[in-house]
Amino acid sequence: MAKTAVTPTRSENYADWYQNVIRAADLAECAPVRGCMIIKPWGYGIWERIQKILDAKIREMGVSNAYFPLFIPLSFLEREAEHVAGFAKECAIVTHHRLEAKDGKLIPKGPLEEPLVVRPTSEAIIGDAFSRWISSHRDLPLMVNQWANIVRWEMRTRVFLRTTEFLWQEGHTAHATKEEALGKTMEALELYRWLAETVLAMPVILGEKSPAERFPGAENTFCMEAMMQDCKALQAGTTHYLGQNFSKVFGIRFCDQDGDLKFAYTSSWGVSTRLMGGLVMTHGDDNGMRVPPIISPEQIVILAIVPSEEHRKEVLAYAHALAADLRLQSFAGESVRVLVDDRDRRGGEKNWEWIKKGVPIRVEVGPKDIEKRQAVIMRRDCDVRDKEVLSLEKLTRNISALLEDIQSNYFQQALAFRDRNMHGNIETLQEMQDFFDSKGRGFILGKWCEDPKTEALLDQTKISIRCLPLKSRDTEGACLLTGKIAKRDAIFAKAY
Amino acid sequence: MAKTAVTPTRSENYADWYQNVIRAADLAECAPVRGCMIIKPWGYGIWERIQKILDAKIREMGVSNAYFPLFIPLSFLEREAEHVAGFAKECAIVTHHRLEAKDGKLIPKGPLEEPLVVRPTSEAIIGDAFSRWISSHRDLPLMVNQWANIVRWEMRTRVFLRTTEFLWQEGHTAHATKEEALGKTMEALELYRWLAETVLAMPVILGEKSPAERFPGAENTFCMEAMMQDCKALQAGTTHYLGQNFSKVFGIRFCDQDGDLKFAYTSSWGVSTRLMGGLVMTHGDDNGMRVPPIISPEQIVILAIVPSEEHRKEVLAYAHALAADLRLQSFAGESVRVLVDDRDRRGGEKNWEWIKKGVPIRVEVGPKDIEKRQAVIMRRDCDVRDKEVLSLEKLTRNISALLEDIQSNYFQQALAFRDRNMHGNIETLQEMQDFFDSKGRGFILGKWCEDPKTEALLDQTKISIRCLPLKSRDTEGACLLTGKIAKRDAIFAKAY
Repeated sequence: MAKTAVTPTRSENYADWYQNVIRAADLAECAPVRGCMIIKPWGYGIWERIQKILDAKIREMGVSNAYFPLFIPLSFLEREAEHVAGFAKECAIVTHHRLEAKDGKLIPKGPLEEPLVVRPTSEAIIGDAFSRWISSHRDLPLMVNQWANIVRWEMRTRVFLRTTEFLWQEGHTAHATKEEALGKTMEALELYRWLAETVLAMPVILGEKSPAERFPGAENTFCMEAMMQDCKALQAGTTHYLGQNFSKVFGIRFCDQDGDLKFAYTSSWGVSTRLMGGLVMTHGDDNGMRVPPIISPEQIVILAIVPSEEHRKEVLAYAHALAADLRLQSFAGESVRVLVDDRDRRGGEKNWEWIKKGVPIRVEVGPKDIEKRQAVIMRRDCDVRDKEVLSLEKLTRNISALLEDIQSNYFQQALAFRDRNMHGNIETLQEMQDFFDSKGRGFILGKWCEDPKTEALLDQTKISIRCLPLKSRDTEGACLLTGKIAKRDAIFAKAY
Repeated sequence: MAKTAVTPTRSENYADWYQNVIRAADLAECAPVRGCMIIKPWGYGIWERIQKILDAKIREMGVSNAYFPLFIPLSFLEREAEHVAGFAKECAIVTHHRLEAKDGKLIPKGPLEEPLVVRPTSEAIIGDAFSRWISSHRDLPLMVNQWANIVRWEMRTRVFLRTTEFLWQEGHTAHATKEEALGKTMEALELYRWLAETVLAMPVILGEKSPAERFPGAENTFCMEAMMQDCKALQAGTTHYLGQNFSKVFGIRFCDQDGDLKFAYTSSWGVSTRLMGGLVMTHGDDNGMRVPPIISPEQIVILAIVPSEEHRKEVLAYAHALAADLRLQSFAGESVRVLVDDRDRRGGEKNWEWIKKGVPIRVEVGPKDIEKRQAVIMRRDCDVRDKEVLSLEKLTRNISALLEDIQSNYFQQALAFRDRNMHGNIETLQEMQDFFDSKGRGFILGKWCEDPKTEALLDQTKISIRCLPLKSRDTEGACLLTGKIAKRDAIFAKAY
């Protein structure tokens, strides 16, 4: 069996494989601060691509970027009872503003009159701002977004998936009517689906959350759920219809056309660096990361093979000329991104570095190729030993199609994997428990009677209702939890 | 005298004028969190322009973006004695990770074993990472940058200029030699000068900081100092040559070509949202903000004048067609940014809104203009009552030159103002104090003997040595503080 670049492999130990891919691809590392991560340049470059693409689409929705404070006074958080209950158990609290040395140790001094919470989300601080910014129907809709860091003091952390600090975007909107606010909630959800499937090549199921899984303070939470390669679910993005809950506690009111004072309807929605974890667990393989071309910081790396010093100048010139030609091509509306790796290291070492980082296409050029006006192409979506020789002309002409093909392959592979692991033939809670207990894996598509009390039946199982898919089958069946006749589809799975 | 949009005016009360311009231009507001600000869409749009332009140049320097944790363990901060002394008096400290309700109030619970400091700067956490990432000379230079939020618990805060939380970029580099590290320090300084002068139209003086003004832990700090319209100095950006100070305490070592283990030399450098305050105080006037075209979120706003409903469709079509034509033109390497303001509000109200926001060019179009294929142009660098009628063809053809002219005017106006307020004829400390006491304003260009002890002579005066300009006159003169013969030029001024 071929040696793999990452050990253990996925099948040997999935959790360790995940950590090791992140290390091998140089995406991120655990920081020496509890549960925090350092996002390294290759990982951050992927995140910046996601940001850039999503940011442009958020603007197209008519939403403006702004920036709100990191700190939230306790008194703000307290106002929405469910909201504070949802975040009180896991938040970082600033209590002092000065350090003093005492016996060679630094001691916090200068206690604050009112402690501050490091934002676990910004509904409270933005709700307060909205109450000042909105007075008339002419001020609506008001739609802002911020790219920010968020802190939640999670007990068990894992790089990208669940970290004390993470990065995200959070959109917050206020509207005159329920329909408009709910419409924006669904528009954001569809944007996230587009991001996941078209940009990240990650198939998702859109759905509504069950009451137990709702955002604290929301009327309704919608989500996209993706299947990882261990068949567990990843909640990859959520949008919340907040109704008038936050309007009422923060006083977001407007004078309508008839001069009546009304509470606005609000929404909020976000995706985070958790998506990076989703990328790794959707596309990574036993040789490391595989980055979908649209978000890869470099799409092509040209490895210059310099067998001896006399060839150096010629090979490098050839490599850079090829890079320049390739950059004139475009993919997904932008110039193709090409790096010439001319570092003075062994070719094999460089090749494996880029395999592990998951750059979509590696191109080797050496003295032999110069003679023949050709290059050697290695695609990350194929076996690492596969090579194809292409003439320069053909390579340049085909590069957009090649990238498109890889992007599409990643999506199709992930989709086929998910389809293989969707189970529609499990009909009772006992069957479902037996399935998972006997190392069964996957999403269970069943029916649920929607009685909120029944969710507690899953409490001891590690299984949860991931979502009630928006595309529900128009059928009736036995509720998987109670056996009662039920109409609504539900996805049951283990989740991150 | 003409009524102004902002009261008080600059001459009436400069400090209040500053706050009011920020409000009138809708740039930002004070948050209900001590010393923090909310950066509103128009202000944040300017910051995003600055980010985008600076970020591209930082990449060209070979620096990669990454992200490091918000929290710094006390034990890290402690290692560099000067560093911790410089920040201990003004930092936010996280001591708990949970809230519990008690008697209807939330109480911080779950004390941390080691309190965490919210980053006041990241030399410590990045120094620690560098020590893990660097082992060989092949790992050098290592150059990273992060865009991040920073917290310093300042006693007196003012929007943009000095806030508890602010946004910045911080570059951190490690090199094999002193020359390289110092070279990168100066390269960053030159980049900041380019940003300030070419992009922000804000003339700056580059210089070295005196010992008392150095960054805590640096061997040497360099800065750019700009003159605000009240003639006070604004330190608008700094770069630090850190020598081996941080390498030694964090163990940033590398094996050189001969196999010897050596400490690296490091640099760090940053500019922040403080620049936004500098922009207001450099370019704002008594009618509000004036945004230099290169960083203006919109460069042209087209005000559609709709005298009656029957004209609406025609005028809007004309306005949007003009906008489309203008967007085909380019300025500073990008498409011209044009907004059609078709909101259903009074023309005068919209016109003044954009005057206050400082959009470089306002264009009015109404039914009369359609007949004559023309538009009415109003430049923000001219009197607010000045209007010019241009044919559509001429407007489109000249738009880049117009924007260029405004950009250049702002710089020239600021430069002329600074030149008028540079004083080279003050020779003693007493004269300088008398000058400022009798309401004199400006920068004093004098000589300084460079004896660090003499800086204390300024302690009671509100005057400080802003910098020792890199372009020092090759002359000798009496040190302004001691009277001793001195060679080095120094800028003395009051500062923000």
